[in-house]
Amino acid sequence: MTAPRPFKIQPIDCSIAAALDVVGERWSLLIVRAAFNKLRHFEEFQAALGIARNILADRLSRLVEHGILERVPDPIDRRRVVYSLTDKGKGLSPLIITLMQWGDRWGAATGGSKVLVDKRSGLPMAPMRVRADDGRELALEDLEWIDRAELDGEQPAGAAQGLR
Amino acid sequence: MTAPRPFKIQPIDCSIAAALDVVGERWSLLIVRAAFNKLRHFEEFQAALGIARNILADRLSRLVEHGILERVPDPIDRRRVVYSLTDKGKGLSPLIITLMQWGDRWGAATGGSKVLVDKRSGLPMAPMRVRADDGRELALEDLEWIDRAELDGEQPAGAAQGLR
Repeated sequence: MTAPRPFKIQPIDCSIAAALDVVGERWSLLIVRAAFNKLRHFEEFQAALGIARNILADRLSRLVEHGILERVPDPIDRRRVVYSLTDKGKGLSPLIITLMQWGDRWGAATGGSKVLVDKRSGLPMAPMRVRADDGRELALEDLEWIDRAELDGEQPAGAAQGLR
Repeated sequence: MTAPRPFKIQPIDCSIAAALDVVGERWSLLIVRAAFNKLRHFEEFQAALGIARNILADRLSRLVEHGILERVPDPIDRRRVVYSLTDKGKGLSPLIITLMQWGDRWGAATGGSKVLVDKRSGLPMAPMRVRADDGRELALEDLEWIDRAELDGEQPAGAAQGLR
């Protein structure tokens, strides 16, 4: 009996694999989380995360290399360097919130001692939901993979139909 | 000059660290993504991901151990085993979509050849956004950390005030 293969994944061709290469590493995302918490100096990251200095140096370099953090002179003492989130790095906030919510929902029963809330209401954020372009909430069953060319309209209609 | 320490992180006390321990590993999340794509047999995962059999076996065991996948008899051939997403595993869909969107937005310019779309509209999902309980879109600046006890109302008001 041959196993059915409804969908073949090309890891090399997948934006998840690419994203995981950058942020899948445990320390890297914890450093980004610390940067969201306004930590900026090497020593602050080191003290907050309890991470070995050589590993921290390596992960900071990687995050700079990938354009997630940038090294800028400390506005208070320009001989020092601080690490600042780029727009690409700030773009990780939904990922961090989603990861946190999943960890809270399914992780250890105790949860963390700190909770991130909306300043205005003092309440935790709404659960992250997958939504359609028009705002409808989507379940997994509502999604399908199509060829990018179909979406971009780069293929003649006949060829695009053939790919469905 | 002492570096300011606006917020000290306790990695051991953080649901992100806990979540990353489970899904931060590259292959684990790619296996979950494959399961979302309805892959279920060991051989299907192996063929789709091009992963070494011993690594695949190890990662599948870990995902079962963490309650993300479960081993169930294949309904077509009960001598075989298939891997099925649990509710905890299905709860990773917002994470996978968020990761994919970030990779698409900021990753290699080419992007993947396949795009995940809403079946009904044929359009990609709306970007994942952090939202308040009442639906307002939130930026990082709109968020703050509070002590969980404050939220749960487990502390007398006076003590909770003291923690702010």
